[in-house]
Amino acid sequence: MATPKALFFDVFGTCVDWRSTVVREGAALGLPEAFADDWRGRYQPQLETVRSGERPWTVLDVLHREALDEVLAAHGADLAAEQRDTLNLVWHRLDPWPDTVPGLTRLKERFVIAPVSNGNIALLVDMAKHAGLPWDVILGAEIARAYKPQPEAYLRSAEALRIAPGEAMMVAAHNGDLVAAAGLGLMTAFMPRPHEHGPGQTSDLRAEGAYDVVATDLIDLANAL
Amino acid sequence: MATPKALFFDVFGTCVDWRSTVVREGAALGLPEAFADDWRGRYQPQLETVRSGERPWTVLDVLHREALDEVLAAHGADLAAEQRDTLNLVWHRLDPWPDTVPGLTRLKERFVIAPVSNGNIALLVDMAKHAGLPWDVILGAEIARAYKPQPEAYLRSAEALRIAPGEAMMVAAHNGDLVAAAGLGLMTAFMPRPHEHGPGQTSDLRAEGAYDVVATDLIDLANAL
Repeated sequence: MATPKALFFDVFGTCVDWRSTVVREGAALGLPEAFADDWRGRYQPQLETVRSGERPWTVLDVLHREALDEVLAAHGADLAAEQRDTLNLVWHRLDPWPDTVPGLTRLKERFVIAPVSNGNIALLVDMAKHAGLPWDVILGAEIARAYKPQPEAYLRSAEALRIAPGEAMMVAAHNGDLVAAAGLGLMTAFMPRPHEHGPGQTSDLRAEGAYDVVATDLIDLANAL
Repeated sequence: MATPKALFFDVFGTCVDWRSTVVREGAALGLPEAFADDWRGRYQPQLETVRSGERPWTVLDVLHREALDEVLAAHGADLAAEQRDTLNLVWHRLDPWPDTVPGLTRLKERFVIAPVSNGNIALLVDMAKHAGLPWDVILGAEIARAYKPQPEAYLRSAEALRIAPGEAMMVAAHNGDLVAAAGLGLMTAFMPRPHEHGPGQTSDLRAEGAYDVVATDLIDLANAL
């Protein structure tokens, strides 16, 4: 395996434990655990409306806010607009997994580390401040104006660093992300996050492709590289 | 004065001492001091060809490489292509002023700090790694596909953080940069870098506008804010 010049990280699920944080903030407002899953459940269908061109480029903060209104209605919850705006920003203050900050800190010593996420820049900046994620640069959806797994999300991120796709390694807990990246020539590293979706998770429990690295977490990835 | 949410930094001259670094690397190849000034002298005319629409969007690494060939020819210097490629990347490894890293490190505790520079992303990432500049996110020319002082360079940088222009403060050692930013509603902070252009500098020795802050360097700015 060649040595990558840059590591591209999926963020939601791979670096941060979105579900625990959203469940916790929802509970403080009297909302059940299912609220978090329902909110996240609207994510891929929403992104698909942008990918397909059905709606113009729209950043995730805006999509999250629209979905929040729908999910609160479905749960019969009535929050004031200001409470909704505050709750919508829970995605800006997600907690990291325990290995994330020490793992990224070590990886940053040798590589350029960047989120290649579907999150928008403001969201990822706030999250980095909150969680202490030591990114070198924020790449991904908003740079490319494309949502993973659209090829542009990966290719424009490599282009911004003036490296070839094969000089970047995509790191993710999701097989779909890595299969798309590998198909474009990126190196790939998988690590499972078996509790991303809570206790009953059935997907992405193991590597389903021939990735360059399979690690147990980000500290293990630092050891492997 | 309101408290800014983000600080936008000019980089060449304000955060890094481009001239000393370029002079030093040029000297190692037998080139005179004037080589550095001549190379930098082509910068604004080149950017103007992009601003005017005379040529399509082109990143600074490419403009630097073209100018390098011209300047070497003007100095009668014959370097191999590989040497030219290496020398062109001197702009990726510029040294910071002594106050830059301690000043930015303190400012980062309270504000989002970002370069809003005409440098491209790859250049600014490498420079940050080399010089230890602790940026939260890299904004500026390549995000906006516009070169300062074009309004888009400032406005799209604020937009990426989902803040109003008036919630950002532009920090620069150049009056032209700050006058453009102030005209768009950004807050402004000036600090002189009287040796940016070497011993005989005559421009930007003092604040020529009514800026929100005038500081002596980035540590003094941290004290002021």
